[in-house]
Amino acid sequence: MAKLNFEALFIGPMAENGDFFKQMLNFLVDEHLFWRRNFHPEDNVSITLKDKSLPDFISTMQRTEEVLQTLSSRLRTRSMPWHSPRYLGHMNSDLLIPALLAYMVTIMYNPNNVAFEGSPATTELELEVGRDLATLIGFDPDKSWGHVTSGGTVANYEGLWVARNLKYIPMAVKKVCPSLVRGYNDRELINLSPSNILKLISEAKEMGKDVVDNIRMHSLRSKGLHKIETNLGKVLIPSTMHYSWAKAMDILGLGIDALELIPVDEKFRMDIGYLKKKIYELAENGIPIIAVIGVVGTTEEGSVDEIDKIVELRTQLERERGVSFYIHIDAAYGGYARSVFLNENMEFMDLDELRERLDKDGIVSKDIGWPEEDIYNSFKALSYVDSVTIDPHKMGYVPYQAGAIVFRDKRVRDIISYFAPYVFEEEKWKDNPQLLGSFIMEGSKAGASVAAVWAAHKVVPLNVEGYGRIIGESIEGARMLWSKIEEMEVEDFVAKCLCKPDLNILCYAFNKRYNKNLDKMNFFNEKIKKFMSYDTSEFNRPIHSYDHIVSSTKLSRENYGKAVDEFLKKLGLDLSDEGKEVFILRSCVMTPYLTKDYTEEDYSGTFIKSLKKTIKELKW
Amino acid sequence: MAKLNFEALFIGPMAENGDFFKQMLNFLVDEHLFWRRNFHPEDNVSITLKDKSLPDFISTMQRTEEVLQTLSSRLRTRSMPWHSPRYLGHMNSDLLIPALLAYMVTIMYNPNNVAFEGSPATTELELEVGRDLATLIGFDPDKSWGHVTSGGTVANYEGLWVARNLKYIPMAVKKVCPSLVRGYNDRELINLSPSNILKLISEAKEMGKDVVDNIRMHSLRSKGLHKIETNLGKVLIPSTMHYSWAKAMDILGLGIDALELIPVDEKFRMDIGYLKKKIYELAENGIPIIAVIGVVGTTEEGSVDEIDKIVELRTQLERERGVSFYIHIDAAYGGYARSVFLNENMEFMDLDELRERLDKDGIVSKDIGWPEEDIYNSFKALSYVDSVTIDPHKMGYVPYQAGAIVFRDKRVRDIISYFAPYVFEEEKWKDNPQLLGSFIMEGSKAGASVAAVWAAHKVVPLNVEGYGRIIGESIEGARMLWSKIEEMEVEDFVAKCLCKPDLNILCYAFNKRYNKNLDKMNFFNEKIKKFMSYDTSEFNRPIHSYDHIVSSTKLSRENYGKAVDEFLKKLGLDLSDEGKEVFILRSCVMTPYLTKDYTEEDYSGTFIKSLKKTIKELKW
Repeated sequence: MAKLNFEALFIGPMAENGDFFKQMLNFLVDEHLFWRRNFHPEDNVSITLKDKSLPDFISTMQRTEEVLQTLSSRLRTRSMPWHSPRYLGHMNSDLLIPALLAYMVTIMYNPNNVAFEGSPATTELELEVGRDLATLIGFDPDKSWGHVTSGGTVANYEGLWVARNLKYIPMAVKKVCPSLVRGYNDRELINLSPSNILKLISEAKEMGKDVVDNIRMHSLRSKGLHKIETNLGKVLIPSTMHYSWAKAMDILGLGIDALELIPVDEKFRMDIGYLKKKIYELAENGIPIIAVIGVVGTTEEGSVDEIDKIVELRTQLERERGVSFYIHIDAAYGGYARSVFLNENMEFMDLDELRERLDKDGIVSKDIGWPEEDIYNSFKALSYVDSVTIDPHKMGYVPYQAGAIVFRDKRVRDIISYFAPYVFEEEKWKDNPQLLGSFIMEGSKAGASVAAVWAAHKVVPLNVEGYGRIIGESIEGARMLWSKIEEMEVEDFVAKCLCKPDLNILCYAFNKRYNKNLDKMNFFNEKIKKFMSYDTSEFNRPIHSYDHIVSSTKLSRENYGKAVDEFLKKLGLDLSDEGKEVFILRSCVMTPYLTKDYTEEDYSGTFIKSLKKTIKELKW
Repeated sequence: MAKLNFEALFIGPMAENGDFFKQMLNFLVDEHLFWRRNFHPEDNVSITLKDKSLPDFISTMQRTEEVLQTLSSRLRTRSMPWHSPRYLGHMNSDLLIPALLAYMVTIMYNPNNVAFEGSPATTELELEVGRDLATLIGFDPDKSWGHVTSGGTVANYEGLWVARNLKYIPMAVKKVCPSLVRGYNDRELINLSPSNILKLISEAKEMGKDVVDNIRMHSLRSKGLHKIETNLGKVLIPSTMHYSWAKAMDILGLGIDALELIPVDEKFRMDIGYLKKKIYELAENGIPIIAVIGVVGTTEEGSVDEIDKIVELRTQLERERGVSFYIHIDAAYGGYARSVFLNENMEFMDLDELRERLDKDGIVSKDIGWPEEDIYNSFKALSYVDSVTIDPHKMGYVPYQAGAIVFRDKRVRDIISYFAPYVFEEEKWKDNPQLLGSFIMEGSKAGASVAAVWAAHKVVPLNVEGYGRIIGESIEGARMLWSKIEEMEVEDFVAKCLCKPDLNILCYAFNKRYNKNLDKMNFFNEKIKKFMSYDTSEFNRPIHSYDHIVSSTKLSRENYGKAVDEFLKKLGLDLSDEGKEVFILRSCVMTPYLTKDYTEEDYSGTFIKSLKKTIKELKW
């Protein structure tokens, strides 16, 4: 296969590939229109020339035209210029042409992936996508189960739903089939490992379909949480978690109080020492652990939790205390970055081989030092966790909305499966993996977004030749921008980054030299943000007047603790300051063009210039 | 405003309006491409002519082309011909041109409606759509709260989530602010009406922000369901419910056992007598009712529960026993049909005026007798319920995926709101309705699907002039097909419809005269289904070879009781037969062309012919 040229994969900041895009689009739309005409060509037309000549026919088309013109004008007035490397805010950039076109044309066929009957074509594509993502994560595609969701939030809900229901299965087995769990006491049952629970269900299956049904009828999903006879249990997660995890706990009825926030270290990764202390403490007190959630690519900082350490802790705890838990990884943002580590045969490369390869192929120069060993080990260990959320509409460069979840062991489907009488026929549903709606949280879902992900994966392989290159280069870009910001000299200002980015999200703030007051610093950085972003209060300033666009975040000192204090110290602030929140600027470097050097100064250079100018112009 | 001509709104069975579609599409795509070019026109191009001449650039484009051709070919080989009036299966048909184009072009801008910063244009459109749908349901758009979801399933989850959390708020108020509920005992608190609970929260708000936060911290969402000190409570729903309601109970931690199925009458509507008995019985026994769910347009039969009666029951129970409950309506399928009842000023018409109007405008002929008074009263009463699920991707004629939910009282947002530090700034979040992500179940969501709904509503008003006409005509079509099937004569076969359709879904089955065996009848109807539908086992038969396509459903005699037995009797079956499930054929008549009479025989005529031919050819 010839090398991919990424210039050919995006429409481009100046719509450089616009002609190709339109040509393909028209080709695909024509194919659809002729397909319509070729279904029973013997039928007469329903809309005749006479119909078309009627005044109200013409005025109706005109009305459609007017509404669409209004829409187009509103979109052009108020959309974010994500196609431009001048946009360095949220996790958005230009999108892959194959994904865009696949999405657009599939909408015309309007498949619904809830059931095969509604989507014979795209259901198959979804199964392929599930296998793609399983392979990316390092799961065995034959033994795992992955599918597309409407987004990472729902994928996370689904992961926690499975973890929660799985946890209480052994207690139901005890009621229905005590022979299967003979010799285990309640404490042991509530602390079984996910794989042992799945083994239990397989054993129950061998005893007959009724047995499994009976277990389900005695399990949490039927009885509800208020009937739980043991301690409820906790969900452990780093304090850098996405806010939707609190929603997840609420929705699933576990309650936010059962979420145990683990502090992060100065790299904004879960503090493994603290985690260890906590899980041993819980085990000691007989409180079950429903799940430990790790984050690969935190939404604010792009930090990568040390997944290998979490996996090790589980093994250790199982061995030492007979206590286990479910591991779910929220890699909604960072998951696709695992492609950097895979060679053409989808093998996880040795670290030395990888560094060599990245340097040689011009993806990440050796000077950059990425990936550090801890990041490498973390990505490698993903293959040992129970489920992973991974969003194509983030680093998959695919349009909204397409999230995904992959489970290591497809037998988890037995825990959550349902079926509708008119959608599924039970006999098939049991063996046929093509009836997606019975195994997922959502119902009707667009086959179009699945087609977009599928097309993206077909064109851009999920390894170092494909996504690995795009993402690797964006990480290099972020690291280069990190140096540039750290080295920035603007009059008497101090510029600091929150930390060296694990992936491609940069956080930074500016302080006046010798200022020790957090509120003052926050106020100044908020001014920069206001000037360099579009929000409700800025309605009157057209988007085209922005030179660059960034985003921002607020870190609470209570949640982030020493990690953020270390940052404040570097900025020269007084740590005894009572300010509770730190306002910082944030740039996701997803654009493939940041460091492309065709002009005298590349886009990273003009961005630094723009920052300097803004700092100078805004009064402290 | 000139009268709408519906021939101009769809691409058409033979792609009759394909040229207009392509012309508009190219216009909109060009506007996008030039918008890209006009963001900082001073920037140099990033992808140069030299780049474009490189061999790997060309081979990459070729690869994109090949993958898209493969996709197109798979779509054309294996998509359902929903554009054709020959498709009479699931709830699908041709789609509105404005919705299709709005969806397709908005994807290119890729807005994310989770937050205003990611979607300044389409967040505003979503607020407009929320108001449109509120007005359609009969809610005050200023006081209500509606938004788009990824589908009806998630909308239903969200409705039940609100109902569940609302239920236990008074107990939290008692803990935090006993003064607010002085004089109420626990039994009264757990049975407060939704509006009184919302009033409580408003009163708490006046006492200060901290008070509300404190209530939330002591409420179900923080504490979890296992900490509930009262009886958990029940959710009442007709046995015709969509299967996702069982999932909802599981996910929300309430447990499927807390779902109380209410039998249906011979029109497949919730048996109000039984419901009344049940709620009085629960009240008697001190078991709270979390919610009563009504269905407007059941997925199998299109039946419309008598919502007016449910609303009346609540008033009566409040008066007589001081017991109240939340009412959610699953109108995912039928919600848009309320547009039939609204005049141009969005007023719900008098029944006589309505019938006159429908007849005069050629929407539903008076002979058809639709709407019957009970259907009329049900739709009218929707304005009194607490929340309604309504799916644009069903009778909104909009592509997947777009569901929606509307709450009568926007104060429910206080119960479920969350915010992410980087997405929302708390001060704004409190007052600014444009930060959708903090008030909904989902996270990132496509602005494109919102734009599709918005454009559809702008072109096709949500009243008798717009959607009312399309849907009214499809109901007329279904009623006509109902007569034709009931009057069908095929050798010695009996043809019967399950019931006269409340909306536009028809269920029917065929029996050999004098056959009394259910299994035999099921077997024969399954054969018809196999012949007239596309499923996994029929891979080798191309879609183009099907004359007509239908869907099917199975009704369990246990769940459906007397309703389905009445049907079996009409078919001449022996009611003492032990068969447990009844297999029936099902056609959703959403196509706007069924009874359009340009050919000698319209599409309903050829469908009946096709049914007859199939019955004759298949051996009994």
